[in-house]
Amino acid sequence: VKKFINRVDDMLAESLRGFADAHQGLVVLQTEPTFVRRADAPVVGKVALISGGGSGHEPLHAGFVGPGMLDAACPGQVFTSPTPDQMLAAAEAVGGEAGVLFIVKNYSGDIMNFEMAAEMISGPHATVLTNDDVAVEDSSFTTGRRGVAGTLVVEKIVGAAAEAGMDLAGCAELGTRVNQACGSMGVALTSCTVPAAGKPTFEIGAGEVEMGVGIHGEPGRRRVPLASADAIAKELVGAILEDLKPARGSRALLFVNGFGATPLLELTLLYDAARRALAPSGIEIARSLVGNYVTSLDMAGASVTLTVLDDEMTRLWDAPVHTAGLRWGR
Amino acid sequence: VKKFINRVDDMLAESLRGFADAHQGLVVLQTEPTFVRRADAPVVGKVALISGGGSGHEPLHAGFVGPGMLDAACPGQVFTSPTPDQMLAAAEAVGGEAGVLFIVKNYSGDIMNFEMAAEMISGPHATVLTNDDVAVEDSSFTTGRRGVAGTLVVEKIVGAAAEAGMDLAGCAELGTRVNQACGSMGVALTSCTVPAAGKPTFEIGAGEVEMGVGIHGEPGRRRVPLASADAIAKELVGAILEDLKPARGSRALLFVNGFGATPLLELTLLYDAARRALAPSGIEIARSLVGNYVTSLDMAGASVTLTVLDDEMTRLWDAPVHTAGLRWGR
Repeated sequence: VKKFINRVDDMLAESLRGFADAHQGLVVLQTEPTFVRRADAPVVGKVALISGGGSGHEPLHAGFVGPGMLDAACPGQVFTSPTPDQMLAAAEAVGGEAGVLFIVKNYSGDIMNFEMAAEMISGPHATVLTNDDVAVEDSSFTTGRRGVAGTLVVEKIVGAAAEAGMDLAGCAELGTRVNQACGSMGVALTSCTVPAAGKPTFEIGAGEVEMGVGIHGEPGRRRVPLASADAIAKELVGAILEDLKPARGSRALLFVNGFGATPLLELTLLYDAARRALAPSGIEIARSLVGNYVTSLDMAGASVTLTVLDDEMTRLWDAPVHTAGLRWGR
Repeated sequence: VKKFINRVDDMLAESLRGFADAHQGLVVLQTEPTFVRRADAPVVGKVALISGGGSGHEPLHAGFVGPGMLDAACPGQVFTSPTPDQMLAAAEAVGGEAGVLFIVKNYSGDIMNFEMAAEMISGPHATVLTNDDVAVEDSSFTTGRRGVAGTLVVEKIVGAAAEAGMDLAGCAELGTRVNQACGSMGVALTSCTVPAAGKPTFEIGAGEVEMGVGIHGEPGRRRVPLASADAIAKELVGAILEDLKPARGSRALLFVNGFGATPLLELTLLYDAARRALAPSGIEIARSLVGNYVTSLDMAGASVTLTVLDDEMTRLWDAPVHTAGLRWGR
């Protein structure tokens, strides 16, 4: 595999070690079992937010650990669910009397393992499932819709609420509400290559794209000839609008997310195309985010996520956040 | 070309429009001629920092426009120098009595055009050249060494100094000093593809890498078989140390920079390898940066930059910055 790697078996451990070392003071890496926590956790009196899932989507989730977002993240092997003992150890390390909120992307393995962990936790806890991908119902690893880039939006907004002192029930309700206000769809120009597999996850021709692809390279809606950025943006935005059905005049966050191998030059161009594709709907783009945030290893491609924001969500989106992957202040 | 693009001729304009739209309130895009400026420019009494160069290296340079870094950036077409009228217009828009400092990467076309612009400017001005790439003397577009990722370090540190009120001569001297304290070397796993060319800039086998590659795909030192991340890090770090010859006990910034198509999972692994490769030198890693900052379109690969920091540079590196590509606060 043409990657920066030593032994495939050591990849995750070395990558996490580098991540934690480069972000000393912000995060701490724990091993046996593996999780990444806020350096200042546990934060007394605060609901602890814990997420996790297979690795290969960096900066999600460990890159979103820090004040204003997650308290801990449990990274599984590449595209593989973390184990219940990771989640349990994370919950014990960062959780307190205010309880633990798990934010879980809707994949069968993740749900099963987070449920097993939740059963073993003595203190108060709740779970928010994300399933923002409008492309397909059911998929390779999923019953129902997949949780994709909208997960970042849930983690940011609920993270700000928890930081401001919202209680566990409130955080769980808010997370569910944000997820429902979110729709995403992606498109792949190339496959990704899982290091342990050593070959591309799927074959795709030089002149075609996978419309509605999942963040592990799962099949989407259809394989189509490569089209212009405008045509691609129109299809992605159209599918999201058909699902979300936002009222004219709604205010929204427009988030264009790269899958890992698509440069920023193209992502801002796709953002421009998505913005123009949205114009006829009468949605106001109140907030924007463009970059590689919820990736699929070395896949070239991108997704568009639209989140209809109410005033509370807007205020929480704007609240300070200090993580490796997302950072802003007053 | 398998990219998010409409017409090749419109790519830059659409990408810049998307960039400026996604970062409203922070930057303003001017056209005819094209440059990106701080929304709050000109800042009275402050030395104005202007950089620029060919596009395709995003977030460099427009992504580094904002408080604490650049006042304006002049983007040329992909891998093509901006024109003197862009730089002149930028200088007129953001410059004042404190003068203008141009930060220019050492490429023949960039230097020629920035010099032509400088000759037309009436007010005080100075130029800092960056040439941190230790891989080769002279190259495809360069007499002497190439300016690469160390340019970010110069822009950040001098940007903080200008924000704090340092005068033009001081900023120019500091910039030159930071550049001299900087050494970089890169490695390509794949070529990049310039949209207008429509095919890869160079051919490279599935089992080989280009050691010492430039940020436009210029040839490096040698073509070698793909090696482990540890072996690659050792060669990059070794070449930089041989050039910089930092004293044992020096404090340094270790910056691992992705070229655009290499995911964060690999970049943090390469950071870990570089950190271990540095250990025998007795250099203390006082600051770290890992991510895609000075890219080469869709090239897979990365560079390592080491900057030996004195106390002043460390303080200025830590100073608040608010740009699209680099952001931190107190």
